[in-house]
Amino acid sequence: MNITIVGLGVIGGSYAMALKESDYNIYGIDINYDTIKKAKDLLIIKDGALDNDIKSKEFIKKTDLLILCIYPKSIKKFIEKYKVYFKKGLIITDVTGIKDNFINEVENLLPREKNIDFIFCHPMAGREKRGLNYACGTIFKKANFIITPTENNKEENLRFIEELAFLMKFKKVKRLSAKEHDLIISFTSQLPHAIAVSLINSDNLNIKTGDFIGDSYRELTRIANINEDLWCELFLGNKNNLIKRIDDFQEKLDILKKCLVNEEEESLKEIFKESTRKREVLE
Amino acid sequence: MNITIVGLGVIGGSYAMALKESDYNIYGIDINYDTIKKAKDLLIIKDGALDNDIKSKEFIKKTDLLILCIYPKSIKKFIEKYKVYFKKGLIITDVTGIKDNFINEVENLLPREKNIDFIFCHPMAGREKRGLNYACGTIFKKANFIITPTENNKEENLRFIEELAFLMKFKKVKRLSAKEHDLIISFTSQLPHAIAVSLINSDNLNIKTGDFIGDSYRELTRIANINEDLWCELFLGNKNNLIKRIDDFQEKLDILKKCLVNEEEESLKEIFKESTRKREVLE
Repeated sequence: MNITIVGLGVIGGSYAMALKESDYNIYGIDINYDTIKKAKDLLIIKDGALDNDIKSKEFIKKTDLLILCIYPKSIKKFIEKYKVYFKKGLIITDVTGIKDNFINEVENLLPREKNIDFIFCHPMAGREKRGLNYACGTIFKKANFIITPTENNKEENLRFIEELAFLMKFKKVKRLSAKEHDLIISFTSQLPHAIAVSLINSDNLNIKTGDFIGDSYRELTRIANINEDLWCELFLGNKNNLIKRIDDFQEKLDILKKCLVNEEEESLKEIFKESTRKREVLE
Repeated sequence: MNITIVGLGVIGGSYAMALKESDYNIYGIDINYDTIKKAKDLLIIKDGALDNDIKSKEFIKKTDLLILCIYPKSIKKFIEKYKVYFKKGLIITDVTGIKDNFINEVENLLPREKNIDFIFCHPMAGREKRGLNYACGTIFKKANFIITPTENNKEENLRFIEELAFLMKFKKVKRLSAKEHDLIISFTSQLPHAIAVSLINSDNLNIKTGDFIGDSYRELTRIANINEDLWCELFLGNKNNLIKRIDDFQEKLDILKKCLVNEEEESLKEIFKESTRKREVLE
């Protein structure tokens, strides 16, 4: 089986690393020559090509599974550009963090006559840095993997992707509708990013902050180091959900603030007990 | 030199562990018998006693450095109870997360005629769990240590505590006024805790959240598992600063939300670039 990974960044590179010991032939397409060279040196791809190289078309022609590890907008462009070379029955999967509108747009681009099966996925892992240098074959070890099946997906292909996720050592694989996915992800992923960014941006003390922090501040701001192009797409592509999550969060923070203003000791303790309970059942 | 550590929890226990290889005689006082037994078994204290045991008074009588690793309110009670046994010239230090009002209250309790030197300190390290079982001699390795000198402190004693912090492997030791400390800490420590608590408490999706999270949600909520008695004291003891920090944070989050509502792509990217810049210079 021939697999082509498009975009050998943190996620695409980590996929290639996690599949290194498998029997699949892994090909890589990227827009950066050094990345391709490094992936070949690491022996995580059998061969690689630049996006506009004629070789990349040859890869696509023989590809059975196409893994698109690029930004949402780039996925649409890639399909437009390469769909004439797609094999009949090709399986495509992605790693995109939003699904609902995105799935509809992408499905409309697929050449129906070729019987393409696009299995939309969201591996819930990442790094705050970009590029193959930060990829790692073990980042999926404790991670969750979400599949958002469409009515076009074949059950056998859904199962194949699930098995692939377990092969890459994901801990849990769950199926959700696209709407459920976007709702949940607005809370578990996008809201934390909005909070981390706002926290560090509210630093107005004019001190060398790093000299006066503990682990909590370090952890809460790690993801404030953020890829602005990618996350701008993700936030705006799920804006209604995210706005609601921010509102709900601010309401809770307002309640806590009110306890401080009125020195409501017992209510404050109840808030802390609730958060402790919720954190203890989390994992 | 005889050192007595009062409260062998995460911080007190970690102090004892970090000082294990030193030449000091370390004694421990705690309210829990099992904790004392465990500390003795671990050989991190030379001897230990329960708070109300007659032995604890004997420890205090020969103590040259008293390290109080208990809640702010308990510190005041401890001083009231044991001050008749304090040696002349005793150095006391603490690990309390708020300073301004606290220092004034504590200094008023000290027996002036005994020339006690209380060096107020804040080791910026901790764990989200309680008790000696979660103590660890290496948690101070990358940590910051803050001293808030008073006009009563002797320079030689301040230097001694600074050396002790470096002996325990703290990375940086800084001096701040109590007011500066409380202002800074409201941002770098208390605001993150208020945010983590509110984030997890705003979970209203009625799903098994843990199945749909990545590292970001795990990290942003770790400290939502919080000691309600301690943190209630810390929050209320610094409420005006913390309320201001929450307001500043909410203002930044409101701006981000407005970008979503109005789909202001470029402004959103600027926000992300600002947070990335700030995070990169942090450490």
